[in-house]
Amino acid sequence: MDKNLFIGVDVGGTKVAAGLVNEQGEIRSHLRVPMIANGSANDGLGAVLSAISQLLRDGAPVRGIGVCSPGPLDPAAGVILNPPNLPCWRNFPLTDALRKAYPVPVKLDNDANAAALAETRWGAARGYNNVFYATIGTGIGTGIVMDGKIYHGRTGSAGEGGHVSIDYRGPICACGKPGCIEVLASGSAIARRAREKISSGRESSMLALAAQKLDAVSGEVVGKAYAAGDALAREVLIESADMLAVWLSNMIDLLDPEVIVIGGGAAELYRPFFGRLRERVPELTVNPRAREVTIVAARYGAEAGIAGGAAVCT
Amino acid sequence: MDKNLFIGVDVGGTKVAAGLVNEQGEIRSHLRVPMIANGSANDGLGAVLSAISQLLRDGAPVRGIGVCSPGPLDPAAGVILNPPNLPCWRNFPLTDALRKAYPVPVKLDNDANAAALAETRWGAARGYNNVFYATIGTGIGTGIVMDGKIYHGRTGSAGEGGHVSIDYRGPICACGKPGCIEVLASGSAIARRAREKISSGRESSMLALAAQKLDAVSGEVVGKAYAAGDALAREVLIESADMLAVWLSNMIDLLDPEVIVIGGGAAELYRPFFGRLRERVPELTVNPRAREVTIVAARYGAEAGIAGGAAVCT
Repeated sequence: MDKNLFIGVDVGGTKVAAGLVNEQGEIRSHLRVPMIANGSANDGLGAVLSAISQLLRDGAPVRGIGVCSPGPLDPAAGVILNPPNLPCWRNFPLTDALRKAYPVPVKLDNDANAAALAETRWGAARGYNNVFYATIGTGIGTGIVMDGKIYHGRTGSAGEGGHVSIDYRGPICACGKPGCIEVLASGSAIARRAREKISSGRESSMLALAAQKLDAVSGEVVGKAYAAGDALAREVLIESADMLAVWLSNMIDLLDPEVIVIGGGAAELYRPFFGRLRERVPELTVNPRAREVTIVAARYGAEAGIAGGAAVCT
Repeated sequence: MDKNLFIGVDVGGTKVAAGLVNEQGEIRSHLRVPMIANGSANDGLGAVLSAISQLLRDGAPVRGIGVCSPGPLDPAAGVILNPPNLPCWRNFPLTDALRKAYPVPVKLDNDANAAALAETRWGAARGYNNVFYATIGTGIGTGIVMDGKIYHGRTGSAGEGGHVSIDYRGPICACGKPGCIEVLASGSAIARRAREKISSGRESSMLALAAQKLDAVSGEVVGKAYAAGDALAREVLIESADMLAVWLSNMIDLLDPEVIVIGGGAAELYRPFFGRLRERVPELTVNPRAREVTIVAARYGAEAGIAGGAAVCT
């Protein structure tokens, strides 16, 4: 039996995932409830309360509750500002609301920041204090850990590395900036770039894998086609890895971390290219000791937010 | 009379500049001696010792000596590693050598880091604790101040923001990476881009200002032509400012500083575009409070290294 448990809550646009996490970062139980993101503030709060209450039902010795959600949010004040995916909450004091309901410490942080801390405390970056974490999925989120703590910056909005541009004349990101790494090398960007190449007439098995529907060429399809030896899928992924290498070398030149951790749903697409990243990134920095920076895969997958929530309240 | 003075020493490839600085960051006296960068380690050391000894001659109450130089260097160990501009020193323990000669604390740091600290302590960023400083000259150097201290990273090589690329397919920087802001928007890059446009046949008064010698079109010539109303010079500078805006927005998204300070010999070229920068940078970030980040001109000019050296030893 675990003497101390922490509740990690991962709030997204469609679901709330929550779990009990022990002091070793092991997830002891977890559940999901639907998130009503388009309703009232109380609809959204209700989903979070429901998830937490179910976890508390069996009298687990819970010492804290950590919630993570997409930003922008104010981690110091515990306030959700105005995340595009959570229209129910505008300047909503989520931690205050939860503190009223439960007699334990409650913390709030950005999901990528929280996952970065979980990887530092319990995961792939264990033993390090200065970590750059990237989660690559539909978008690209990042978290910076310095001296073992999340780096928040002035307003709590630091660490938005997914919106660091490496192409000032490039495609416009959803955020409005050209050439963010998110619009170039995220899972959706990989799929978009594959579709563009197919549209331009390039041969590929990807279209067959997507039942001849161009719109159905997803990151997953690119990955499958690559695994089956498709040359165009390989080209798309190598280009993506090379963009990621420039971006990661930017992070080393600026932040000089000890370790780089890569997670997220689309990280699998990059796994065959980790060797290439480890080779190219040091060549692209002025840091004379860049080759010592380890590039590793994250420990936590889909449960990164649960572990992250728990990490921020330990 | 100042009760406490600090010696700041700025070591470059051709000269050592050194000065006495008081606790208010005022430079009370300064001098230059030639640097023998191609000679032996002791030739280089001799230049530094000569500068310091001249400043000490009148019995000034010196409490510390701070040296800054181009990197790479190890600030914690006080060792110069292998700066391209200072071939005389390879893994040279400069602070140890100076401590043997003078009975006061001796510190060493990267020149841009040191200047960032001087601006934070005494200059344009006074009153702030989280500062992003850029010095734009032949190259672009940067320094990150967090919680009132220089951010050094794992190896002491953090804060090399001049080598953050915003153009992964762009021109190759001296460091080997494509599209570093240094190769796009430094003083030399502004001049190079002006020359390229002139070579391609564009009309401009710049060539006349450079006595019809294309090679003589320098950053200074671009600035003069702009001031006299030259349209091509204006185009080059606006493009430069817009690249700088993308780069600065990257810094806000990643670091979320309180203030951005811009100095260096080519900063003057950007002065007419500070309004444009202040307008565009917030539009290019996801930080909901980016508009609050002040963008200001540095206090220290050519003496930034002297003030910086003094700042790192106070």
